[in-house]
Amino acid sequence: MTDEATAFVPGHVTGFFSVHPADDPTEAGSRGAGLTLTDGVEVTVRPADETAVYLDDTSIEMPPVERVCSALGVSARVTATTDLPVGSGFGVSGAMALGTALTANAVFDAELSENELVTLAHGAEVQSGTGLGDVVAQARGGLPIRLEPGAPPAGTLDGIPARTRVEYLAFGELSTETVIGGDTDALSQAGTEALSRVVAEPTLPQFMYASRRFAREAGLLTERVRDTIVDVSEAGGEASMAMLGQTVFALESGLSDAGYDPAVCETHHAGASLVAGGRE
Amino acid sequence: MTDEATAFVPGHVTGFFSVHPADDPTEAGSRGAGLTLTDGVEVTVRPADETAVYLDDTSIEMPPVERVCSALGVSARVTATTDLPVGSGFGVSGAMALGTALTANAVFDAELSENELVTLAHGAEVQSGTGLGDVVAQARGGLPIRLEPGAPPAGTLDGIPARTRVEYLAFGELSTETVIGGDTDALSQAGTEALSRVVAEPTLPQFMYASRRFAREAGLLTERVRDTIVDVSEAGGEASMAMLGQTVFALESGLSDAGYDPAVCETHHAGASLVAGGRE
Repeated sequence: MTDEATAFVPGHVTGFFSVHPADDPTEAGSRGAGLTLTDGVEVTVRPADETAVYLDDTSIEMPPVERVCSALGVSARVTATTDLPVGSGFGVSGAMALGTALTANAVFDAELSENELVTLAHGAEVQSGTGLGDVVAQARGGLPIRLEPGAPPAGTLDGIPARTRVEYLAFGELSTETVIGGDTDALSQAGTEALSRVVAEPTLPQFMYASRRFAREAGLLTERVRDTIVDVSEAGGEASMAMLGQTVFALESGLSDAGYDPAVCETHHAGASLVAGGRE
Repeated sequence: MTDEATAFVPGHVTGFFSVHPADDPTEAGSRGAGLTLTDGVEVTVRPADETAVYLDDTSIEMPPVERVCSALGVSARVTATTDLPVGSGFGVSGAMALGTALTANAVFDAELSENELVTLAHGAEVQSGTGLGDVVAQARGGLPIRLEPGAPPAGTLDGIPARTRVEYLAFGELSTETVIGGDTDALSQAGTEALSRVVAEPTLPQFMYASRRFAREAGLLTERVRDTIVDVSEAGGEASMAMLGQTVFALESGLSDAGYDPAVCETHHAGASLVAGGRE
């Protein structure tokens, strides 16, 4: 057992998705595609008498993190820091669940494999209703295409071989729980069509086209998000909506060129991993 | 089409493996486990009238690279640079095949997915007889466990969740083609047992123990490699033999502590990816 361990988990914006429920939370999930980001979440775990979770120095309730600790049979102080906006479609809850699994495994010598830790974190996120596809995408890195829903070995992934600067602007929260807990038939139909397009042509332009079309067809666009995407397009750029948040993301300098003042990062070409500590 | 694209592919040392032939080269391969390394190969591709391959400014024959270009239907000037010793168990041929697939896809707008490019490079490497498991490991990064042989979707991988400094010392070449072209029954039996150990306990100490035991049981140790591993062990460190090369790799400062003057790098926590160029 070590004193503490730290992991970095990239942020993840989903461009489109379809919902796939299953009795086993490790087999439930989503299909879809997105971008992992160099802006992410750093998670540190230390042994503690009771599990407590902090995000940017504020004590919070984070059910997926609590579920991960409980599944590992450990009590820990989990502290996370991030520049990403919370509840805005960047996979912060998934990142915290996955980062906790990786670091707690190291601190408490749980001797699980990476796939087992991803499965644990994904299951915890699905059971908490906070996400369906971020964990497996964040474990992979790059520009993940989620071909089959769920954690390994059920879930399978591919990737778009590209890299790009990413700009984003968050206008406010959108509850993942409310959207994925409601009627998702139309959304999943649109998501399935978008996935077919990107599988047939796994390029960044096709991903952006499929994402915009999905956002429109799934009926998730707010007026402000739609207007911003149109502004970027009129300035010659490519933007779409992060699922699920009132967030616009754009390739290269799309939002800047349209006169906005966005946050700037890049696609991240590694999955989540330990950054320090960890006896192994 | 762009002028050129460059990819970085991590080096990969295999600690143990078993051989799994199949009629389809994308399904043939090896099971086993290893470490990907921050020392790797940078590959740049430019369109050319005829395919030509250069490694560190020297023109070479590299059948897996030529097969990748031919499968994509392109002619390219492929230039690679590396600090790794060639023919010594670091996966340089696999790295060149995978790096060529990633960069040629970008330069010639081939619109293949990452899994498709990995499959292409793995098949080219197997057909050339130059390797069985490096390409899929190098595409993944980290400390890959090859659970099922072959490229996606047949091949499946897991990982040991750890990171470490790695030291290595190469004493000379060992022909992959000769070893994997010969009788591999005893070797594969030892490799299967080693894999069971690491799957049951996916930690770095278990990986090193299983690797040393495999090297001994498979009868691949040369005297110089064996003596060096013993020296590291007597100095309190952990070392084993890179498959397939007359190469010793050690964790942390194992070789330095034993009085050697090794090359030093770290485990690499990302798979192969484009580093520059590439229109997408």
